[in-house]
Amino acid sequence: MPDLSALLSPRSVALIGASPDTGTLRGRIMHILARHEFAGQLYPVSRSHDTIMGRAAFATIADVPGPVDLAVIVIPAAHVPGVLRDCAAAGVRAALVLASGFAEEPSDEGRDLQGEIREISERTGLIVAGPNSEGLAVFELGLAATFSPALDGDGLVLVPDAGPPGRIAAVAQSGGMGFAYFDRGRRKGLRFSHVVTTGNEACLESLDVVEYLVDTDGADIFLLFMEDVKTPSRLASVAARALRAGKPLIVAKIGRSEAAARAAASHTASLAGSHEIYQAMFRRHGVIEGRDLDQMLDIAAGFAAFGNRPPAGRNVAIFTGSGGAGGWLADACVDAGLEVPVLDDETRARIDVHLPPYGTSQNPVDGTAGVIRQLGYARIARMIAASARVDAILLITSARNPHSLVSEADALAGFAAETTKPVIAWSYTLPHPDAARTLARAGVPLVTEMRNAPAAIAALEIHARARHRALAAPAGSCRPVAPAVVSALAGAPRVVPEVEAMSILSKAGFSFEPGRLAADADEAARAAGLIGGPVALKVQSPDIPHKSAAGGVVLGCRTPEDVRAGFGTIFDQVSQRHPDARIQGILVQPMARPGLEMILGIENRSGFGPMVLVGFGGTAVETGRDVALAAAPLDMSDAAASLDRLRGAAVLDPSRHDLDALCALLCELGRFAVAVGDYLAEVDLNPVLVHPPGSGVSIVDALMVTR
Amino acid sequence: MPDLSALLSPRSVALIGASPDTGTLRGRIMHILARHEFAGQLYPVSRSHDTIMGRAAFATIADVPGPVDLAVIVIPAAHVPGVLRDCAAAGVRAALVLASGFAEEPSDEGRDLQGEIREISERTGLIVAGPNSEGLAVFELGLAATFSPALDGDGLVLVPDAGPPGRIAAVAQSGGMGFAYFDRGRRKGLRFSHVVTTGNEACLESLDVVEYLVDTDGADIFLLFMEDVKTPSRLASVAARALRAGKPLIVAKIGRSEAAARAAASHTASLAGSHEIYQAMFRRHGVIEGRDLDQMLDIAAGFAAFGNRPPAGRNVAIFTGSGGAGGWLADACVDAGLEVPVLDDETRARIDVHLPPYGTSQNPVDGTAGVIRQLGYARIARMIAASARVDAILLITSARNPHSLVSEADALAGFAAETTKPVIAWSYTLPHPDAARTLARAGVPLVTEMRNAPAAIAALEIHARARHRALAAPAGSCRPVAPAVVSALAGAPRVVPEVEAMSILSKAGFSFEPGRLAADADEAARAAGLIGGPVALKVQSPDIPHKSAAGGVVLGCRTPEDVRAGFGTIFDQVSQRHPDARIQGILVQPMARPGLEMILGIENRSGFGPMVLVGFGGTAVETGRDVALAAAPLDMSDAAASLDRLRGAAVLDPSRHDLDALCALLCELGRFAVAVGDYLAEVDLNPVLVHPPGSGVSIVDALMVTR
Repeated sequence: MPDLSALLSPRSVALIGASPDTGTLRGRIMHILARHEFAGQLYPVSRSHDTIMGRAAFATIADVPGPVDLAVIVIPAAHVPGVLRDCAAAGVRAALVLASGFAEEPSDEGRDLQGEIREISERTGLIVAGPNSEGLAVFELGLAATFSPALDGDGLVLVPDAGPPGRIAAVAQSGGMGFAYFDRGRRKGLRFSHVVTTGNEACLESLDVVEYLVDTDGADIFLLFMEDVKTPSRLASVAARALRAGKPLIVAKIGRSEAAARAAASHTASLAGSHEIYQAMFRRHGVIEGRDLDQMLDIAAGFAAFGNRPPAGRNVAIFTGSGGAGGWLADACVDAGLEVPVLDDETRARIDVHLPPYGTSQNPVDGTAGVIRQLGYARIARMIAASARVDAILLITSARNPHSLVSEADALAGFAAETTKPVIAWSYTLPHPDAARTLARAGVPLVTEMRNAPAAIAALEIHARARHRALAAPAGSCRPVAPAVVSALAGAPRVVPEVEAMSILSKAGFSFEPGRLAADADEAARAAGLIGGPVALKVQSPDIPHKSAAGGVVLGCRTPEDVRAGFGTIFDQVSQRHPDARIQGILVQPMARPGLEMILGIENRSGFGPMVLVGFGGTAVETGRDVALAAAPLDMSDAAASLDRLRGAAVLDPSRHDLDALCALLCELGRFAVAVGDYLAEVDLNPVLVHPPGSGVSIVDALMVTR
Repeated sequence: MPDLSALLSPRSVALIGASPDTGTLRGRIMHILARHEFAGQLYPVSRSHDTIMGRAAFATIADVPGPVDLAVIVIPAAHVPGVLRDCAAAGVRAALVLASGFAEEPSDEGRDLQGEIREISERTGLIVAGPNSEGLAVFELGLAATFSPALDGDGLVLVPDAGPPGRIAAVAQSGGMGFAYFDRGRRKGLRFSHVVTTGNEACLESLDVVEYLVDTDGADIFLLFMEDVKTPSRLASVAARALRAGKPLIVAKIGRSEAAARAAASHTASLAGSHEIYQAMFRRHGVIEGRDLDQMLDIAAGFAAFGNRPPAGRNVAIFTGSGGAGGWLADACVDAGLEVPVLDDETRARIDVHLPPYGTSQNPVDGTAGVIRQLGYARIARMIAASARVDAILLITSARNPHSLVSEADALAGFAAETTKPVIAWSYTLPHPDAARTLARAGVPLVTEMRNAPAAIAALEIHARARHRALAAPAGSCRPVAPAVVSALAGAPRVVPEVEAMSILSKAGFSFEPGRLAADADEAARAAGLIGGPVALKVQSPDIPHKSAAGGVVLGCRTPEDVRAGFGTIFDQVSQRHPDARIQGILVQPMARPGLEMILGIENRSGFGPMVLVGFGGTAVETGRDVALAAAPLDMSDAAASLDRLRGAAVLDPSRHDLDALCALLCELGRFAVAVGDYLAEVDLNPVLVHPPGSGVSIVDALMVTR
C-alpha cells in the first residue's frame, strides 16, 4: 500500500497557479483555502503576483522556503507535466491536479498528457491525484483545496463540536457528488474526515484512498460514488478489508442502466449489465448500496452514532405521538425487511402506566402528543429499549416546534449515550434548526425522509451480520480439494465436455447418474442392458456444447432396438449439422427420475471471485431473465436466500421439491469454486432435477470451461 | 352529494371554547385563527371572557350577532352534543369538532358520545367533521382553524404570490400528517387550497371532502392519507370521478403491514392484507400511491406545474453539468420505468455547437459546469425539449450557489411557461433559498431527493394514460350478456359445481372440453367410448369444492375397464372421506392436451368492483404467493401487464406458451365479470392449460360462487 499521508494529512500545501481574482477558478480555490484555518503551512505559487490575499507568493515550487507535502495544481493542462517534474525535483510528496484538459476530452493530446502524468508518477514516486479533480478537503486540518461552493458558505463550520464520533470520508470520481455529500451531511450535524474527488484517476484510484484510510484508521465510514471500477478484484479485497476493520462502505454504483453506462467517462465493458455480480459481492462483504444522497447520509448517520452498537436482529419498536405516522412508518419498516412485533406484556405494563386511554403500547407505541409533551421521548423510549423483543427504536416527532425536544436535550443525550440499541428519529413536519441541532448533539440521527429510518437500521444489521461472519470464517478457510482434481483441471481443454467434466466433478465429490460411453450401436445396446430400464443417449464432442440443438440427444430408449435406432438417429443428425465435429462417442445414461428442472453453475470471470448461480432450467434459462448469484463460498442460508431472490421463487415449494438437497448442492458447488477458482472460468450443471422431498437431486448434464 | 360549502369555504366562523391562554389548545387555536387574515367574520364564543385577543366574545352560539357558517368546537367531549344541538338551532350550517374523548378511547362513554354526534347530524342536517380532528385550513380565505404548529410559523405566508397554478388539497384522518403536507409543501412554494383533517369521521369522511372539492372545482390535486376505508365502493367511484375531472389523487394507504393495521384506529378487517386489491383499483383509476411525504409533495408539484401538459410517453432527457450525477439519475429513471434514449442527430448537432469537447449531447446531456454557467439552463433545455424523441426533461443543478439560476430567472420562467413537456429539477447540493424560490416562481418543481424526479414524471404519465382510457371508454360500456346467462346465475346455488358452472360459462361464450355426466360405471364407460381416447373422471357434488383432495379425480383411463375401476375408486374414496356429500354423478372428460398449468379467476368481494386474477396452477396456488390482480374489464395490454407482475413471470415464454390465448381469456373473463358482477362473488378456472403457441388454452375445471 502506498503512503498517502502527504495527500490525506499534509502538513504543508502549495497552490500552484494561485490567483487573487475570485472571478476565476484559481482565485476561488485560493479564497476557499485561505478562508478556513489550515493547521499547516500554505504557500501560494504564482508567476505574476508577490502576495495573494495577504500571503507571500512564490514564483515556482523551487522557491518555496519550507518542505511541501502536497502541491495543488490549477494551471493549463499543457504545463502540468513540467510542473509535476519540478515538484518531484523539489521534494514535494504528493500532487492534486485540478486542471482539466486530459483524458476526459476525446483528443489525442489530452490522452497523451494524462499518460505523461502517469509516467512521471511511476518514475518519481510522486503521489498524483486527478487530473480533472474538484479537489479535496481534510477537515481535521482545516484544509479545503477545492472550488466547490459547498466549502464556501457563510458561517460554515467544518467540524461539529458535538454529536456522534463516527468520522465520514466521501470518496468520489465526480467532484460534484463528492462535495454534495459533505454539503448535505454537514448540515445534518455529521462529522466528516475527508472529501476526496479523484477525477480522471490517472494514477490514484478511489479504492487506494479507501484502503489507506481503512488501514490507517483515518476515517470510520465511507461514502463512495463509483462510476467505474478499474480492477474488480481490488473492490472485493478492499471491501473485505473494510468489513474486517468494522468500517462500513456505503456505495452508489452508477451504471445499472445502459444510459448511465453511456454517461460514465469510461466503464469496464465486460461488466456492463452485470449489476447482479456487484450485488452478490456487496452482500458478501456487507457493502451497503445507496440510492440517493440523503438516504446514504442518513445511513451513514446511523453508523456514526450506533456503528459500535448495531442491532442484534431485525425487530424494531416505533414510538410516536401520531397514530397515522406510526402506521406509515410500520409499513416502511416491513418494506425494508424489518419486523415490528407487539411488545412483551411486562414492557407494555410499564408503559401503560403513563398512557391515556387513547394511547397504545402494543407497537407502534402511540404515546399520544400530550404525554410526549409532558414526559418527553427519553423516558418511555428507555422503557421500550429495555424490552428483549426490541433490537432498535424509531422515534417519530413533529419538530417544527423545537421546544419539547430542546427542553429534554439532556435526557435524550443521556438515553442515546447509554442505550445498547440504535435510536433513529423522523420528523413529519420540517424540523426546526434548534430541534435538529438538539438531536444531532444528543447523537440521535434525524432522517430527511421517513423511509431512510428503516434503511439505516437495516444497513446496521446487514453490516453487523456480514462482519460477524467474516470474522468467524476468515477468507480462504475452505477445505482443500483432492490433488487429482487439480491436476485433471490443469490438464483439461478450455471447453471440457460432459463425460470428462463429470469425471472431474465426481472426483471432487459430486454424484452423477452412472453413464457409459459407447463407440458404436452394439456397444450402446450392451451398455443399456447393463444399466437396465430406459436410457438416454447423448453425443459427446468437444465441438458440440449444445447437444440438444445439434440433434445429439435421444431420450427414453427402452429396448436394444430403441438404443440402436437412437444411436443411428444421433449420428445422422449430428453429421448433417456438424459435419466436422470430432465425435468421442455416445453417452448411455439411465433416464433420470422426473423432477423440477433447475440450472446451477459457477461464474468466475468477473474478477470479484467465483459466484455460484442458480435459476430455472428449460424455458427460464432460454429467456435468460431469472438467475440469482451469490459469492462463493455459500452456507445453507445463503443458498436459501439465492432461491428466494428468483423471480419464480413461488414455484419452489418445499412440500414438493427437495430444496434442502438443492441448497446443499449449491453449497458444495461454492466450496468447489473456491478451492479450484484459479483453474475455472465456468461450470454449468444443466439440468439439475430436483426430486420430491427426501429424494435428492440429479445432475443430468455438466459443462465446464477452464481458464 | 351533501353541500359542504359551509365547511370548506365558510364566510363566518365561530370558535366555541375560545380562550386567551396560549398555553392551552383552545388559546393556541384562537391565536392561530387570529394571526391570519380571515376573509370572513370570526366570532369567539366563551362563557368566561367578554373579549379575547382584542375581539368581542359571545357567551353562547345563540348570542352571536350574524349568521354562522362554521362552528369550530374545542370544549370537553361531554358538552359537545349539547353545543351541536344549540348550533343546529341557531342556524349554524357546519361544525368542526376538535375535541377528543370519543370513539378513539376504548370506553363506552366515548363511543356513545360519538353515536350522539352522528344522530344529531343525521337528524338536523348539520354537517359535522371530526371529532378528534386537528382542524382545517382554507387558504384562499386565510382561515386556519387548528392548533397545528405548521400554521404558526413566523413569516408564514399562506398562499404564494407566484409559481404554478395547481391548487393542492391535503385530506387526512391524521391531523399530524394532514398539516405535515402543508408544512413541507408550502416551503417548496406549492399552492394549497385546503388542509382538512377528519379525525374519527363520525359523520363526514375523507372521501366526502374529496368528492365535494372535485365536483365544485375547489382543488386541482389531492394528497390523501388514508388509514382505513369505510366503503371501498366509494373509494373506487370517487377515484373514477376525480380521474375524469383530471384531478389526480396521490394516496398514502396505510396498513400494508400487520403492524400498521394494528396502528390504525379501526380498519376494514376483510381487506387487511389485500393491498393488491387496492393497487389493482389504483392502477385502473390512475391513483398514484405515495411512499413518503416529500415524494408525494414532489409528485404533487409535478402535477401543479405540468398536469395540463403531461408527457406523451416515458422517454426523458437529462440535462446536467455533472456527468456523475447524470449517470445516477439515469439509473433512477430506469428504476422508475422510464427510458433515457440517445437523442436524435439533429438535436445533438444543435446542442454540440455549444459544448466543449468533454461535454456530450447523447443523453444524459452533459452540458459541463462551465457552459451552464455561461449559457444557463433554459437555452439548451429548449433545444432538448424540441426533440420528438423526448417526452420530459430533468435538469440537474448545484443550487448551493444561487447566482446562476437567479440570473436566468426570466429565461427559465419563459421556457417553463412555453414548453409542452414537463421539466423537473434536482439539486445535488442543498439548494440555496433564493435558488429554490427562483425555480418555484418559474414553475419548475425542485425535488428534495433525486428519485422523486422520475417518480413525478412517471406519475404524470400514468395518470394521463389512465385518464385517456377512462374518457375513451366510459365505465359500464361493456357488451351485455345473454339473458339466459343472467337467469341461470340468478337461479344458481351459492356454490356452483363444475358441470353447472361450465354450462353457465359456455352460455356466456367460454369453451370447455365437452364432458358427459355419468350416474353409474356403465354409463361412464359408454361416455368414454363416445369421447374416444383417454379420459378423466371427476366427482360432481355441491358439497365437495376440492375434488382432488377428496379423492374424487382419476386421470388417464384408456379402456372401459379402466373407466369402471376408476368410477369405483372415486366412489369408495369419496364416500369414506365425505360420507354425507350429495353426489350428482361423475363427469367423464377427454384428457386435456398437456400445457402449462395456470389458474384464472374473478374476485368480486372487495367492494372495488370485480377483479380478474391470474396465477400459476398447482404448486404456486397452494403456496398462495404468486397471483396478479387487475380491475375488470381488461384489454390485452392489461392482461399482459398482469402476467408480467407475477413473480414467476420468467416462466411465461411466448415461444413455448400461447400467451395471446391466455391474455384473450383474461379479457373475456373481465368482460363477463363486468356484465354479471352483481350476481358473482367468485369464479375459479383451475387449472387452465396453456398450450404451445397457436394451440390455445384449455379450461379443465371451473368453480363459481354466487352472491
